[in-house]
Amino acid sequence: MTTYRAFEVTAAGQFALVERELTDPTPGQVRLRVQACGVCHTDTLAVNGLLRDPSTPIVPGHEIVGVIDAVGAGVTAWRPGDRVGVGFLNGHCGDCDSCRRGDFVNCAAQPLTGTTVDGGYAEVAYARASGLVRIPDRLAAIDAAPLLCAGLTMYHALQGLDARPGALVAVQGIGGLGHLGVQYARELGYRVVAIARGTEKARLATELGAETYLDSTNEDVGAALQKLGGAAAIVATAASGASMSALVPGLAPRGRLVVVGAGFDPISVQPADLIFGTRAIAGSLTGSSIENEDNLHFSVRRGVRSRNEVRPFAEAPEAYAHMLTGRARFRVVLDVAA
Amino acid sequence: MTTYRAFEVTAAGQFALVERELTDPTPGQVRLRVQACGVCHTDTLAVNGLLRDPSTPIVPGHEIVGVIDAVGAGVTAWRPGDRVGVGFLNGHCGDCDSCRRGDFVNCAAQPLTGTTVDGGYAEVAYARASGLVRIPDRLAAIDAAPLLCAGLTMYHALQGLDARPGALVAVQGIGGLGHLGVQYARELGYRVVAIARGTEKARLATELGAETYLDSTNEDVGAALQKLGGAAAIVATAASGASMSALVPGLAPRGRLVVVGAGFDPISVQPADLIFGTRAIAGSLTGSSIENEDNLHFSVRRGVRSRNEVRPFAEAPEAYAHMLTGRARFRVVLDVAA
Amino acid sequence: MTTYRAFEVTAAGQFALVERELTDPTPGQVRLRVQACGVCHTDTLAVNGLLRDPSTPIVPGHEIVGVIDAVGAGVTAWRPGDRVGVGFLNGHCGDCDSCRRGDFVNCAAQPLTGTTVDGGYAEVAYARASGLVRIPDRLAAIDAAPLLCAGLTMYHALQGLDARPGALVAVQGIGGLGHLGVQYARELGYRVVAIARGTEKARLATELGAETYLDSTNEDVGAALQKLGGAAAIVATAASGASMSALVPGLAPRGRLVVVGAGFDPISVQPADLIFGTRAIAGSLTGSSIENEDNLHFSVRRGVRSRNEVRPFAEAPEAYAHMLTGRARFRVVLDVAA
Amino acid sequence: MTTYRAFEVTAAGQFALVERELTDPTPGQVRLRVQACGVCHTDTLAVNGLLRDPSTPIVPGHEIVGVIDAVGAGVTAWRPGDRVGVGFLNGHCGDCDSCRRGDFVNCAAQPLTGTTVDGGYAEVAYARASGLVRIPDRLAAIDAAPLLCAGLTMYHALQGLDARPGALVAVQGIGGLGHLGVQYARELGYRVVAIARGTEKARLATELGAETYLDSTNEDVGAALQKLGGAAAIVATAASGASMSALVPGLAPRGRLVVVGAGFDPISVQPADLIFGTRAIAGSLTGSSIENEDNLHFSVRRGVRSRNEVRPFAEAPEAYAHMLTGRARFRVVLDVAA
Ligand SMILES: [Zn+2]
Ligand SMILES: [Zn+2]
Ligand SMILES: [Zn+2]
Ligand SMILES: [Zn+2]
Ligand SMILES: [Zn+2]
Ligand SMILES: [Zn+2]
Ligand SMILES: [Zn+2]
Ligand SMILES: [Zn+2]
Repeated sequence: MTTYRAFEVTAAGQFALVERELTDPTPGQVRLRVQACGVCHTDTLAVNGLLRDPSTPIVPGHEIVGVIDAVGAGVTAWRPGDRVGVGFLNGHCGDCDSCRRGDFVNCAAQPLTGTTVDGGYAEVAYARASGLVRIPDRLAAIDAAPLLCAGLTMYHALQGLDARPGALVAVQGIGGLGHLGVQYARELGYRVVAIARGTEKARLATELGAETYLDSTNEDVGAALQKLGGAAAIVATAASGASMSALVPGLAPRGRLVVVGAGFDPISVQPADLIFGTRAIAGSLTGSSIENEDNLHFSVRRGVRSRNEVRPFAEAPEAYAHMLTGRARFRVVLDVAA
Repeated sequence: MTTYRAFEVTAAGQFALVERELTDPTPGQVRLRVQACGVCHTDTLAVNGLLRDPSTPIVPGHEIVGVIDAVGAGVTAWRPGDRVGVGFLNGHCGDCDSCRRGDFVNCAAQPLTGTTVDGGYAEVAYARASGLVRIPDRLAAIDAAPLLCAGLTMYHALQGLDARPGALVAVQGIGGLGHLGVQYARELGYRVVAIARGTEKARLATELGAETYLDSTNEDVGAALQKLGGAAAIVATAASGASMSALVPGLAPRGRLVVVGAGFDPISVQPADLIFGTRAIAGSLTGSSIENEDNLHFSVRRGVRSRNEVRPFAEAPEAYAHMLTGRARFRVVLDVAA
Repeated sequence: MTTYRAFEVTAAGQFALVERELTDPTPGQVRLRVQACGVCHTDTLAVNGLLRDPSTPIVPGHEIVGVIDAVGAGVTAWRPGDRVGVGFLNGHCGDCDSCRRGDFVNCAAQPLTGTTVDGGYAEVAYARASGLVRIPDRLAAIDAAPLLCAGLTMYHALQGLDARPGALVAVQGIGGLGHLGVQYARELGYRVVAIARGTEKARLATELGAETYLDSTNEDVGAALQKLGGAAAIVATAASGASMSALVPGLAPRGRLVVVGAGFDPISVQPADLIFGTRAIAGSLTGSSIENEDNLHFSVRRGVRSRNEVRPFAEAPEAYAHMLTGRARFRVVLDVAA
Repeated sequence: MTTYRAFEVTAAGQFALVERELTDPTPGQVRLRVQACGVCHTDTLAVNGLLRDPSTPIVPGHEIVGVIDAVGAGVTAWRPGDRVGVGFLNGHCGDCDSCRRGDFVNCAAQPLTGTTVDGGYAEVAYARASGLVRIPDRLAAIDAAPLLCAGLTMYHALQGLDARPGALVAVQGIGGLGHLGVQYARELGYRVVAIARGTEKARLATELGAETYLDSTNEDVGAALQKLGGAAAIVATAASGASMSALVPGLAPRGRLVVVGAGFDPISVQPADLIFGTRAIAGSLTGSSIENEDNLHFSVRRGVRSRNEVRPFAEAPEAYAHMLTGRARFRVVLDVAA
């Protein structure tokens, strides 16, 4: 094999299936044969050309599972045949201030998979060794893929809470992120409230481990949370800042709104709503590569699973479009190995 | 003495000097002879009748230093003759969930001195024993008073930071709160940036311990902070949510905007500005009574001092009006003992 | 009813069943009709007269469940008919430095139930209101009792860990404390190792949620833990300092040995074993009254249960003797209501 | 220059001055012209051949300041001419679990400068790029050297405390480590107690910033600390586990004994002394390379300085012997550039 197929975004919203030459990994990099790649809402950054010169083609996809088939110079911890994953962060540099403080997520020189560098809507992908995630044997590629970004995002946001066992934790949005968040929160010992629009997802939320379901179209979520004692934390996954503003009054004293969904409209909050009750609003961004391994092991051990719709590689553009509708149940994954 | 004089707010913005009957402290309460009382911007809540029925007269003032002259039933830890202070929080209940978790600041049943109960624009004041602050002998009443609210607010906000020694910490607003904040931040080992409007306060900020002064009317504060490496924390004292929104981009990765100034307009923030950089916005509210003692000892030991304009008790309304102008340098204190 | 029966310790190891006059609760206190009382190894402090003048009779027992039948002056948060528990800490004072810092467990003036004040081997008991624990309706008195000390001790030790989800956490000793610890650790999301002497408890440990069982008589526990990756924490329940010394080498970097079992021989550790690996040894002591409520709710919700041997009140001395043998499976509880 | 001079340890306690061939740095490494090197008590590990085959010569010294004159393959963040330091940790691997968690101090594959790899008793030294510390321009090599190990050790131990401003912090041992510890503790806002043997160092301790001096040969240090309110932390620098055991009773509730001095006899502690008071004993080991930069900047800014006895390079063996006597005031530094 000297070439591979990939879906490039050639203009905003336009995909092209192309044949690319296989190249050697650069120093510090590895090359993967892709087995599966999840389709994530953040792919819109690439597909809409928001983050870089839209005239340069880019391959989206940052929930990649594959097998290493070549390693670049200086890579000693990984070897061909290793089964690995790559998430949104393509590998930290090790040299910047954030890296030297061990804060790899905030590396100042980290490529973003499928966004600033080519990703996994392809038969072959590249990643920095520092971004690699070892995949447990017993976890299938299709099952692992969505955990690498959606799963990690929720795992990381929830495991960083400083809340007591049994504390009330709410997950806003029961979609690709939230349906995982409810499971993680439950397995971490919290009492879980699911918040979504409409009643359609109430039963599912209960199945996933929520004790309470709140329909945000039908009640004042802040007041409802206070009636339950106030939330120690709310992890907000909706792509809407405005919807998050409404959540702050639902926080218990010392409560924290954790923002993982990146809408384009702002969150707006009254200073007094933060001061009285000493509440906080905090962003949370995916996690490091070893946290991703922690996440996979935790998920396997505790039965946290993504519910996926699987599509063949050739249908990547359609899979992306389907994800965009918001009607997927709940993650869309490309089966590249098939 | 069977009566005492007090300034009551009788209607929004209206003061009346009245003569009141001395009453016994209720169970759990003490009665104080007031020596000094600071004038704080939060007094506007009482004077403007914002927090309770404006038809009921209220005595403002929550930076009270005095001497106990009577204790109510069940008070065993304090006795007449003790020199004590009372801040904004009049004493926690001990029974609510927050109290049982040791989070006295968020007590669900705590009177607010000079706001929901009578305060210190008076010769006599009352407080719950749980709200009392022992005043070090070597600290004069006039010097102690502004530390009980303004000082504690800044001390508490800064001591709660999880920032490394020498980290860049900014204080926004160099007024009553901020001029204390710069001193505390310096004494806690931080590298201090002062942010204010205009150039007038630049020299003072340096005297107080700031390394850098930023004039927010003249430069992009977010960009200027990033040029200095990014702020680990910004303690925002301005009574303006909008002015705080502009500070978020100045935070370093993991940085935190600590809100202590309660403006009436909202803070507005883009979700992505919190997620990328994993930043937070957090409210901070004064501190507990023993933290206030910590604060006084720390202030004495490290030479942190409020710069005060002292007015006689009889001029309380004028003192309040002067504070409101924003031209006081920097705290206004009523000398009630004189 | 004007009298009640109680078992007093009259000399080291000597019990006497006595008839006592019912007295009114003092200010701040409540009086309970006891329904059940657990028998705990710490009762030895009272029974052996270790903590106070052995010539004064004392009633042991600090895992008390009962119904309030009288409240003292100043008690407003509780009323007759409330079903409550009392653990080892009889109620904090609210006035000492520790209390004012919210650290009620370390209150400098807190009676110890059944140790420095009379406890629950009796039909009636007294406690400070600040020490009371509300019992969930669906939790039977017999089931609740052992959770009030043994359960809380383990819950508190484990919930205070700063370990990631899925971290390796070991529980040393699978007796009254440890059989609860394994369950809590599992429900908090940890990967659990049980350590005990012999093979007898291996199967039980697995049933309770341990992934791995280590027989400390048969293998080097430190080495075995390192083979599993090193323990993020080991909660040590054995009444033997020497047995704990051997655990330190099993800690992962940043690992922590949490000491809850109070043997009389010292723990001995090489400075280098703490420095290299930056490990710690920390004591943990029961928890506050509201943590006990958290603990009960968590236990009910997650199915954490003590395995109890129930004895009638009249057999308290025999029940105590049975506990001392170490052969009880696993907690002994007096049914006082029967 | 194609050769350089170095002092090798050829047998336990035996130094030989040798001429070595200059070699190129290996990938990931840099080569330094040494300007100064501190003499540290930990050098005994190398000089006494405790850590590796004593038949292989080793160059001691791990407080190295120099100028890079060559960089190995893959080193991009540093270049010839950079003025850098190297401490005890020679550079982390980046690949092990600890490194991937950002815990570089506990890297499983980190050479120890002057101990497992050659150090700075030489004109030329080598280090991994990940271990390098940028030296501020205004800090002389002689002044910087002792801060790289002794300084960092104390800075790191103290900055990691979770103690409130003005908390009582004790430093045990007022020698090379302790005389720096007192200064750091003071600059971090603590109330400092110095503990040493005899009265000789009392005046110096006060000069350095201690409020109180305790002579451990003359009083019960635990009781004396309790009389001062109990220590929130004690940083123990003595090379004696037994001397540390005696400190535990001096800790306040929640207090922590931080062990940085590595004696060969064990610390011994009663379980009850940890449980009652919820106290901890924790090891602390130097710090990461960027923390060392933080440390240098903090030291320059706040005036923390090591008091040094400077010796010419040629007298390294005598300098080492002098350090061993314990009579040096307070750090011994080799001037290699002279
Ligand atoms: Zn980086
Ligand atoms: Zn994604
Ligand atoms: Zn309360
Ligand atoms: Zn105020
Ligand atoms: Zn107390
Ligand atoms: Zn017990
Ligand atoms: Zn490493
Ligand atoms: Zn050293």
